[in-house]
Amino acid sequence: MEKIHIRYSSGAVDHYFGPAFDRLLSLCDWENLFIITDKNISRLYRKQLERYRVIEIEPGEMFKNQQTADKVILSLIELGADRQSFIIGLGGGVVTDLTGYVASIYKRGVKFGFVPTSLLAMVDAAMGGKNGVDVGLYKNMVGTFRHPDWIIIDPFFLHTLPDEEWSNGFAEIIKHAVIHDEFHFAELESFELTEFKKQKDLINSMIHRSVSIKTGITSNDEFEKGERKLLNFGHTIGHAIENKYNLSHGHAISIGMVAEALLSTRMAGLSQQDFERLEQLLEKFNLPVNFNFDVDDIWKLLLADKKIEGDEISIVLLKSIGEPMIRNVPLRELRTSLQQLNANK
Amino acid sequence: MEKIHIRYSSGAVDHYFGPAFDRLLSLCDWENLFIITDKNISRLYRKQLERYRVIEIEPGEMFKNQQTADKVILSLIELGADRQSFIIGLGGGVVTDLTGYVASIYKRGVKFGFVPTSLLAMVDAAMGGKNGVDVGLYKNMVGTFRHPDWIIIDPFFLHTLPDEEWSNGFAEIIKHAVIHDEFHFAELESFELTEFKKQKDLINSMIHRSVSIKTGITSNDEFEKGERKLLNFGHTIGHAIENKYNLSHGHAISIGMVAEALLSTRMAGLSQQDFERLEQLLEKFNLPVNFNFDVDDIWKLLLADKKIEGDEISIVLLKSIGEPMIRNVPLRELRTSLQQLNANK
Repeated sequence: MEKIHIRYSSGAVDHYFGPAFDRLLSLCDWENLFIITDKNISRLYRKQLERYRVIEIEPGEMFKNQQTADKVILSLIELGADRQSFIIGLGGGVVTDLTGYVASIYKRGVKFGFVPTSLLAMVDAAMGGKNGVDVGLYKNMVGTFRHPDWIIIDPFFLHTLPDEEWSNGFAEIIKHAVIHDEFHFAELESFELTEFKKQKDLINSMIHRSVSIKTGITSNDEFEKGERKLLNFGHTIGHAIENKYNLSHGHAISIGMVAEALLSTRMAGLSQQDFERLEQLLEKFNLPVNFNFDVDDIWKLLLADKKIEGDEISIVLLKSIGEPMIRNVPLRELRTSLQQLNANK
Repeated sequence: MEKIHIRYSSGAVDHYFGPAFDRLLSLCDWENLFIITDKNISRLYRKQLERYRVIEIEPGEMFKNQQTADKVILSLIELGADRQSFIIGLGGGVVTDLTGYVASIYKRGVKFGFVPTSLLAMVDAAMGGKNGVDVGLYKNMVGTFRHPDWIIIDPFFLHTLPDEEWSNGFAEIIKHAVIHDEFHFAELESFELTEFKKQKDLINSMIHRSVSIKTGITSNDEFEKGERKLLNFGHTIGHAIENKYNLSHGHAISIGMVAEALLSTRMAGLSQQDFERLEQLLEKFNLPVNFNFDVDDIWKLLLADKKIEGDEISIVLLKSIGEPMIRNVPLRELRTSLQQLNANK
């Protein structure tokens, strides 16, 4: 089983690539182990999970909240989890975000690991040490920075992945390419989604590439002082519309990337040609590139964004494919771009 | 204004001794400032607080829970607190514990400072980086380790302190003495509570001494791998009875200290004479030294203690006044001592 060791200032994370269920008990003792997963995953992998203590949550972003965290904490208390316990988050981004958060605050912090089961969680959510829950419509308003001890990336789980979840994952894969690596972007342009679904080697190497980009950036800048902010491309507007309109994360940030690329054509010199390449690549992976929303509603949510300081927001713009920049943009410019996006569609 | 700078591995904390309200705006900008306090403090210091954005919580340990944290977080969102915001906890231990916790998780962590207003918070709760909330009857079951940027210790607040709160504070002052400094313990034996209330210099120097003991121990062992565990003397049994019987923290740990000293006479060679000195000193400060409780109820709560590993608990015992030791004690011994305490009274 291949292993990549990533050092962060606050601790190291081992990334394993290979069969997850075979590996669990070599990474932690059975008697200390608690698995948090959602009801869908638990049903799909009932047989593999039957020997473990499992805490189930409801599936879906709408349950990524404090109330679910409270329930999980009560279950941990009832099951007798102590400070030596090890908690595994087995599932998509909702499960890994919630597990990381609960493990960071339960008894002031216990160890944890992730087994991401969705493409999105494999290439993005499980990595980087950010965890948290939503507060109403505000995404990730509460959480901590804390790394798991390890992450097992096992593409086996993808065989049960619904179509929409494939698109969801590719939204982040495309984002990683567009902010970091024009060559990787061109590679994505050269294949169809169906090829990735069928060819294991192809999807494995694509996951590898995406994981490398994300871990490279986050380990250089763990606490988001600089370079890491680049990962927020598409997420400022994406996060604002995601919960309000109950969109999947991939759909929301696909629309967010288009909106922020549009802002980039106006404020960072992104060419019309590059803008269209991004739009076309997103469409090829069945991701939406336009959306009708209520500008005032979205504006209210945007004003709670963590990246706002005073009357400016720190936002990622593109100079070209693979060449991002971070700019402090006056809030009124952001609002203009929202209006522009909405009017255009 | 005197300043003591304490270094922890995870950051440094400035401890200021002197007038708090005069100092606030030199430590943080008004426009970034949010004060969390309870309704009692807010009423007592209405005039001094009128220029600030204040978030009020209900007073009392029973409100040190996730629900109160959720409300405070909603208020912070509504008031527009961002990642540059600075949160001040002004109040007793409930306020400082809750403020530290909320500040650690709000937008994945913002800066904060403490202005403890009770004697207990000045000598104990505000220091050491532990924060958290209770889950039902389980004390501090959820929280983080995180230090404030600064703490202002201003004995001026003590002029409005109720009698019971004086005793509460002295419970921790006595604990610091009994685990660290026989000379300090003897000093406490030589004065009456009324003298501390009347003589500002006397209480100031006693606070100083207690703060030094606590910060000395916690900065040597921030994450409670060794020496810091000593601060838990009286707290294993104390915490178990505190919420169950709605006791003040000082009363609960006073009883807890007697119980754990009793265990010490049996398992660590504490002399009967030293046991009685402790009992008498607690009584002099109007603290309870016995209590009738339901052993089975308390046992159930004890089993969730963070310090339990397997069938043993790591507990602080006294060899003599000022000379503690940490022992792994079989749980059945702890239960015996509970039964013994209860039967004795």
